[in-house]
Amino acid sequence: MTTPPLSRRDLEFLLYEWLDVESLTTRARFQEHSRDTFDAVLALSADIATKHFAPHNKTADATEPTVGADGKVITIPETKKALEVFAQAGLFAGSFGEDLGGMQLPTSVMRASIAWFQAANAGTSGYPFLTVANANLLVAHASEDQIDAFVRPMLEGRFFGTMCLSEPQAGSSLADISTKAVEQEDGSYRLSGTKMWISGGDHEISDNIVHLVLAKIPGGPSGVKGISLFIVPKYLLDDAGNPGERNDVALVGLNHKMGNRGTTNALLNFGDGSYSPGGRPGAVGYLVGQPHHGLSYMFHMMNEARIGVGFLATALGYAGFLQSVDYAKTRTQGRNQSAMERSDKPIPIIAHADVKRMLLAQKSYVEGALALGLYCSKLVDEQDTADDTQVRDQKTLLLDVLTPIAKSWPSQWCLRANDLAIQVHGGYGYTRDYDVEQFYRDNRLNQIHEGTHGIQGLDLLGRKMSMQDGAGLEALVSTIQATVDRARHTGGEASDLAKSLDEATEQVRNITRSLLEAMDRAEALANSSIYLEAVGHVVIAWMWLEQFLVAASKEGDFYAGKRQAARYFFRYELPTTAAQFDLLATRDRTTLDMNPAWF
Amino acid sequence: MTTPPLSRRDLEFLLYEWLDVESLTTRARFQEHSRDTFDAVLALSADIATKHFAPHNKTADATEPTVGADGKVITIPETKKALEVFAQAGLFAGSFGEDLGGMQLPTSVMRASIAWFQAANAGTSGYPFLTVANANLLVAHASEDQIDAFVRPMLEGRFFGTMCLSEPQAGSSLADISTKAVEQEDGSYRLSGTKMWISGGDHEISDNIVHLVLAKIPGGPSGVKGISLFIVPKYLLDDAGNPGERNDVALVGLNHKMGNRGTTNALLNFGDGSYSPGGRPGAVGYLVGQPHHGLSYMFHMMNEARIGVGFLATALGYAGFLQSVDYAKTRTQGRNQSAMERSDKPIPIIAHADVKRMLLAQKSYVEGALALGLYCSKLVDEQDTADDTQVRDQKTLLLDVLTPIAKSWPSQWCLRANDLAIQVHGGYGYTRDYDVEQFYRDNRLNQIHEGTHGIQGLDLLGRKMSMQDGAGLEALVSTIQATVDRARHTGGEASDLAKSLDEATEQVRNITRSLLEAMDRAEALANSSIYLEAVGHVVIAWMWLEQFLVAASKEGDFYAGKRQAARYFFRYELPTTAAQFDLLATRDRTTLDMNPAWF
Repeated sequence: MTTPPLSRRDLEFLLYEWLDVESLTTRARFQEHSRDTFDAVLALSADIATKHFAPHNKTADATEPTVGADGKVITIPETKKALEVFAQAGLFAGSFGEDLGGMQLPTSVMRASIAWFQAANAGTSGYPFLTVANANLLVAHASEDQIDAFVRPMLEGRFFGTMCLSEPQAGSSLADISTKAVEQEDGSYRLSGTKMWISGGDHEISDNIVHLVLAKIPGGPSGVKGISLFIVPKYLLDDAGNPGERNDVALVGLNHKMGNRGTTNALLNFGDGSYSPGGRPGAVGYLVGQPHHGLSYMFHMMNEARIGVGFLATALGYAGFLQSVDYAKTRTQGRNQSAMERSDKPIPIIAHADVKRMLLAQKSYVEGALALGLYCSKLVDEQDTADDTQVRDQKTLLLDVLTPIAKSWPSQWCLRANDLAIQVHGGYGYTRDYDVEQFYRDNRLNQIHEGTHGIQGLDLLGRKMSMQDGAGLEALVSTIQATVDRARHTGGEASDLAKSLDEATEQVRNITRSLLEAMDRAEALANSSIYLEAVGHVVIAWMWLEQFLVAASKEGDFYAGKRQAARYFFRYELPTTAAQFDLLATRDRTTLDMNPAWF
Repeated sequence: MTTPPLSRRDLEFLLYEWLDVESLTTRARFQEHSRDTFDAVLALSADIATKHFAPHNKTADATEPTVGADGKVITIPETKKALEVFAQAGLFAGSFGEDLGGMQLPTSVMRASIAWFQAANAGTSGYPFLTVANANLLVAHASEDQIDAFVRPMLEGRFFGTMCLSEPQAGSSLADISTKAVEQEDGSYRLSGTKMWISGGDHEISDNIVHLVLAKIPGGPSGVKGISLFIVPKYLLDDAGNPGERNDVALVGLNHKMGNRGTTNALLNFGDGSYSPGGRPGAVGYLVGQPHHGLSYMFHMMNEARIGVGFLATALGYAGFLQSVDYAKTRTQGRNQSAMERSDKPIPIIAHADVKRMLLAQKSYVEGALALGLYCSKLVDEQDTADDTQVRDQKTLLLDVLTPIAKSWPSQWCLRANDLAIQVHGGYGYTRDYDVEQFYRDNRLNQIHEGTHGIQGLDLLGRKMSMQDGAGLEALVSTIQATVDRARHTGGEASDLAKSLDEATEQVRNITRSLLEAMDRAEALANSSIYLEAVGHVVIAWMWLEQFLVAASKEGDFYAGKRQAARYFFRYELPTTAAQFDLLATRDRTTLDMNPAWF
């Protein structure tokens, strides 16, 4: 398999020709950087991903992690080796400050770098993905001592990180968590409780695992307002800062998943007495920041993880797209449908309109999703480094609104891309001799973890659109409208596309307002998943109009492909939102009125 | 897992309350039957499926068939045992005539019976599924001697059957097959060539395997007009009709699939000299019917297999639907969205509108698909036994038009049902501890085999709708219109639904005519997959209006559920066709104009 997992050309187009990431080098934080250093990181990432991550992708899938007789988790050695190369390249610390030994790269460049690894090997890329998000949270909210003790080793790739939210009785509903944290005389805490679905929850790949755990301090407020955040390392640190005594964090079992098998996923007991740190049971934990503010801290990591999930879905979709294009160019089958051109020899299947439809659909999904992911990453850079505070706040607002879409849209549509990649391969695509069936299995996870599809819908409509008196909605609509205006000035075909997008955006504005004004909250939110999907399609149409504008006057196959994919999205995809908006406008009650007894 | 794989209540509703299958007992062929005998067969099927097929469904998936050191295929013993019970119950011969030892059951009842096995265990049900279709072909086209020699043992479950069409260089394109059949002095043939994707292609479950093989007799016409059909048994029969000498049919390898692993899938060499029947290499084959008519004979089996694939997809969707309903009723999570009713305890997730949406969608897909499958099966009964020849021809015509939809629609939407079943289960649904991830993997095959999705679109628009000067189109439209008329006379809500269906059906008529009149065939067929999907949704809306009419005036949860699922389909699904029809009306050229170099 020599098809690259991602397109360097497309990344260059999006980062430089469209988002002008190079302009970030005028900001103080990025002043040591240049197009050259960005390119070097991306080339290095492509190289390591291709040479060290991609080759064991199938092996890791076929050899899922198991628990050995000694209770330790067994993973294939290739995973550890690949992550050592990743660490040696300094990529764990890519976006962190020089004070922490980092490269101080913009998030947008770093996301593009990580996408290479996600596309090459979803499972192995899960470990740094979580570790970096964990470290980012701690840099923002932890004490300096905590940062020195836990973040530095993570950025060197010696410790890995996790996020521990869900419990068996509380998946999406964090108000119901019951893990307890009791303060000790020395200011540390002892935790007890069970956490599940913990990605990277146990393994022997890194020297230590830094769990970030949500728990309740007895006597605190009830519900989500009583949640605090703790660092709970698998091994306590000795005086030299090295992993020492085993903490009371016990592996109960690993989950056996349909896909994404390279990342271990664990059920963990905290403080069940399996181990006795300091001579007695109880998982030692260290409070991060203030008590009872844990959920807001965790959302620092969660929001990053949601965008990361969107990238993972996109990367898997992209890898399948590129493989199916290559397959369709070499596989011959059938004849030209046009009688005028009927020939005797079978033609490459890429010549069939229906195959081109399946490839164009994939292209529009994966390149549209990648554009959105990088756009959001650029917003992170703006919120971190823009000179003007007002600009920063505006970028934060827009990022907040886009986050549920950046998570859910790729999870839905880049999975659809994988579905089409299988279909292009025909029977071969259904066999494990090719990669696309694994991408499809790996990708199916992304609608579930870090907040299900339904949770994203509630977040977008019930929280993000309504925040600051509808400022979220206006931030999104006015930003899209600015693109519409530019396209109108460009004229020609761009202005036709602008008209369609403008109408759809007006629909978003009107329907959102109407839903937010609804007296009956249950009725307003009943179709929030449909709302999420409709707004998502409008946002991706906007991403395509942006790309169309960059490509509009340029020559060559690459730009012609961008324009045709934009056309595809506007003709085949955007019009499907009409039926969704109609349904939302009527505040359809079919689901609300369904009586469970009728099933 | 105690959730039944299928709903007996729904089958009774569809067969008796809607299709009035009981009325078939007035026909000569079915006169020995009654509602009691039908019920007995269905109860027996449910019982055997639940007790003997369902229990090894996961085991068969986890223990995929392998080739042993002796070159023989190893499958788990439970498969063979289950099929012995199936055979002992006489189910291989269920729909065959008493002259062949069969029960002479209507196809509609037999399909419902088989659906139990498909829902319980897709892999194991593949063997009888193919064997029965093979036997049906031979009964229609083979000589009496051939029927005695091969069909009788198949109906006793001693021999299994396959269909061998595809070759490595010719998947969907049968004109390109190169397997050769050379006539011998004794009137038999010797075949040589390679066939792939052969389900049930090799195994040790039955005493013999009856391959039906498409091959070309040298000197015949080129392309599809030179294809002949041969019986090629794995073992030649001795004088007593028992399997004797090994024929020259060699297993090259088994495919390793994403799902549907219980059915072996093989690459077979015919006549490569691995064996020497009669002292010399070459696979001995027996010509079925006339030379060069093989493809039309094979389509007898293919059409049956296509409807069977639709049933398989439906059955898998149904099993997942029922499991997710049960899960949603017992799993608690979150609170009621309506502030008025906020309570302290988590509620069963089936109370959330978004979960009800996912369950209603599944219900509308799987019950709509099952209705279509049984409707088509009843058409088979009508074409076989209706008194009036004209009626028979009409039913045949309608069946021909509906076949690509009965194959493709469930393959697409009951897979979507499985996707939603996973989503309802959350993280659990992604693990192999539950069944729904396997259903999803098993079901993905159905858009590929027995003619891909794209092939069905070309068949529907390019062949079925245009045949007999548009008679296919008119047969479909007028039959739907008859339902519309009945619904209008019923009045009330039925007449609202009728109005929507009527408008959509008019769209089908107008757009089909316009496409069939198009001068540019490539342009007309460019979006045939979209056409297939749009017409499919209209057909399923029709199936829902039919069900709504039966349920309209009846009381109880079951009928209320039918009415609500009909509403769901008309409000959430049928409106999505508008964008598809708009696209088709413009004869969109986006895919045609896409240059492969632009990817």
